[in-house]
Amino acid sequence: MTAHPRRIILLTDFGTADGYVAAIRGVIATIAPAAMVEDASHSIAPGDIRAAAWALNQYWKLHPPGTIHLVVVDPGVGGPRRPLASEALGRFLIGPDNGVLSHALDAVPNARVCAVENPRHMRLPVSRTFHGRDVFAPAAAHIASGGDIADLGPPVHDPVRLGLEPPLRSEHSVRGEVIHVDRFGNLITNIPVGWVDGAAEIVIEGKPVGPVRSSYSEVDPGERLAIIGSADLLEIAVRDGSAAATLDVRRGAEVVVRFV
Amino acid sequence: MTAHPRRIILLTDFGTADGYVAAIRGVIATIAPAAMVEDASHSIAPGDIRAAAWALNQYWKLHPPGTIHLVVVDPGVGGPRRPLASEALGRFLIGPDNGVLSHALDAVPNARVCAVENPRHMRLPVSRTFHGRDVFAPAAAHIASGGDIADLGPPVHDPVRLGLEPPLRSEHSVRGEVIHVDRFGNLITNIPVGWVDGAAEIVIEGKPVGPVRSSYSEVDPGERLAIIGSADLLEIAVRDGSAAATLDVRRGAEVVVRFV
Amino acid sequence: MTAHPRRIILLTDFGTADGYVAAIRGVIATIAPAAMVEDASHSIAPGDIRAAAWALNQYWKLHPPGTIHLVVVDPGVGGPRRPLASEALGRFLIGPDNGVLSHALDAVPNARVCAVENPRHMRLPVSRTFHGRDVFAPAAAHIASGGDIADLGPPVHDPVRLGLEPPLRSEHSVRGEVIHVDRFGNLITNIPVGWVDGAAEIVIEGKPVGPVRSSYSEVDPGERLAIIGSADLLEIAVRDGSAAATLDVRRGAEVVVRFV
Repeated sequence: MTAHPRRIILLTDFGTADGYVAAIRGVIATIAPAAMVEDASHSIAPGDIRAAAWALNQYWKLHPPGTIHLVVVDPGVGGPRRPLASEALGRFLIGPDNGVLSHALDAVPNARVCAVENPRHMRLPVSRTFHGRDVFAPAAAHIASGGDIADLGPPVHDPVRLGLEPPLRSEHSVRGEVIHVDRFGNLITNIPVGWVDGAAEIVIEGKPVGPVRSSYSEVDPGERLAIIGSADLLEIAVRDGSAAATLDVRRGAEVVVRFV
Repeated sequence: MTAHPRRIILLTDFGTADGYVAAIRGVIATIAPAAMVEDASHSIAPGDIRAAAWALNQYWKLHPPGTIHLVVVDPGVGGPRRPLASEALGRFLIGPDNGVLSHALDAVPNARVCAVENPRHMRLPVSRTFHGRDVFAPAAAHIASGGDIADLGPPVHDPVRLGLEPPLRSEHSVRGEVIHVDRFGNLITNIPVGWVDGAAEIVIEGKPVGPVRSSYSEVDPGERLAIIGSADLLEIAVRDGSAAATLDVRRGAEVVVRFV
Repeated sequence: MTAHPRRIILLTDFGTADGYVAAIRGVIATIAPAAMVEDASHSIAPGDIRAAAWALNQYWKLHPPGTIHLVVVDPGVGGPRRPLASEALGRFLIGPDNGVLSHALDAVPNARVCAVENPRHMRLPVSRTFHGRDVFAPAAAHIASGGDIADLGPPVHDPVRLGLEPPLRSEHSVRGEVIHVDRFGNLITNIPVGWVDGAAEIVIEGKPVGPVRSSYSEVDPGERLAIIGSADLLEIAVRDGSAAATLDVRRGAEVVVRFV
């Protein structure tokens, strides 16, 4: 029991202009009027499961236990993919079984996961195209009202994983890739801070970036640099500019750390 | 009386970057500090009254009685158009008299509607360009504080209607149009689910779309399909893509249902 | 002591899709679970300090005393710029020392300003690229929990000022400039209402705009006009259109008021 009402954090690819997010808010407010609904984002590119999984991973554990993370990036809506409700480290994660919850569930081996199947906790009749409103929002509201994920449906033991490749390590280098491009055009790689030597030289798609810097201000405006970003991963940036635009690279680009 | 504070749901075409929305939030927080202000959207295209009316209609009734829906899409600000406050099905709807509240007021014949004229419930002096801050926000805060819409001004019996055309029905076909394009490029028509026969063939701007499907997954990625959407209206979509972009059509495009 | 929980209003250039804003929300919710976090905007153009300062100035004083305004537009993150926490007119303003708080601190001569230096109120280890999460959010949460800005670090007496030029006044004219372009394409100038005579003729970049009007509806759709905007400054607009696009001007464009 908490003195504070349950918080539900929304992450979708809906945009806001069509009223879909406000519909979800209305369903939740009707079922769980004390719940506090907050927006993480509705700007995920349509259907971009990897981008949603990345964003979720930046914040889900920073929220206190009891927080309900609702993720609706659901290109398979109405098809055979299962809706999931899970509990990991005391936080709840609800979303389609397409990998959006992958980083969270991978990181917590004893996470509990259930399929959302119980029509008692759905808005009926369930539409064919908007399970955010009719399936996921009622499930989140049920948890916010003190319900358990086991009320929603049977356990699931094989949630879909994104299957991310780790970087390749050899004696003289690490070979990784850009896994996320942020709003600033920063290129975030899958190479963790512990794998990067201070004397290493970074190269992206054949273009040298130099050694890892301690702050953007170590280079001049407009110059490229490598830095350890806020997710403890190697990032390529351009000071006061966009590395994605300047270097013309996107997700999947090859990044090499050469030990010298 | 409710144990939960009054919720005010904002829908505007202001974007957020200019501080206009946060100004509205400040005015409300000052007058009605217990009110909870939530964002439906600030991404309505500038001045697009039909898009705002559509969005509002997707969610206003899903929110519980007592909710205050504040809509500021107001290209006629400062001119002769009236500001309105209304009550329908226990929800409050506040906005300019330009049709943005049209779907809601049309659906509830005994809705009460008042003009907002009482300067006691305005922020003075009222600016010429920002009634969202100076007229509509104080009106919403007045309702959130337990006030009545009749305090704001005299009854209005002729609010502006959008005057939407219903589809045309003949023996062998229904002829309608695209009334909304959503973020995914789905083309939402004015043809209700009850008017579409299972064996019908759908055609948009002369291009065949096939019969109505039960889910996106019935066609291959990239293929067009017809489906009943979450508003119980016929929609044209492209699986994992944008029907608007693929078919190069927008609001107003002709859609024909041919009974076969 | 207030009956209402402390409100924290966020203004950033982060967008929302990368999860950075939700990370800030998580840090705050963990430290100050009763605080209410609201979004002003996350759509400030990357690194645009002047745009953030403008937006903040449209709303900070409209919020009631006790409100915490958190501004993270911080291109110098990780470099020598100081993080600041300040109190002005009973409101708190937190952000980097790069001018984003400039309008607010300029307007209140006896504002208290402190540097945020105390690691006890930081999330450790502090990342090199995301002080929003690790420095500014904990500082805001500390204030929201009833703490004082003096707990965060020593007084600062020389916060960075934006150094805006006032308009030039001569006997027959006032010469100013466009200082902000809003979402509607309205061109907001630095010329205050009191400096504009009713009979004046307005000219922007050599193009005549006519006299100051009382409402948009005084001209036909598509026509340009001058009007006193909601910040009590002269604005150039196009009715039902974008003055920025129609006149092809942006921030910094010259505006002349000719007294006739």
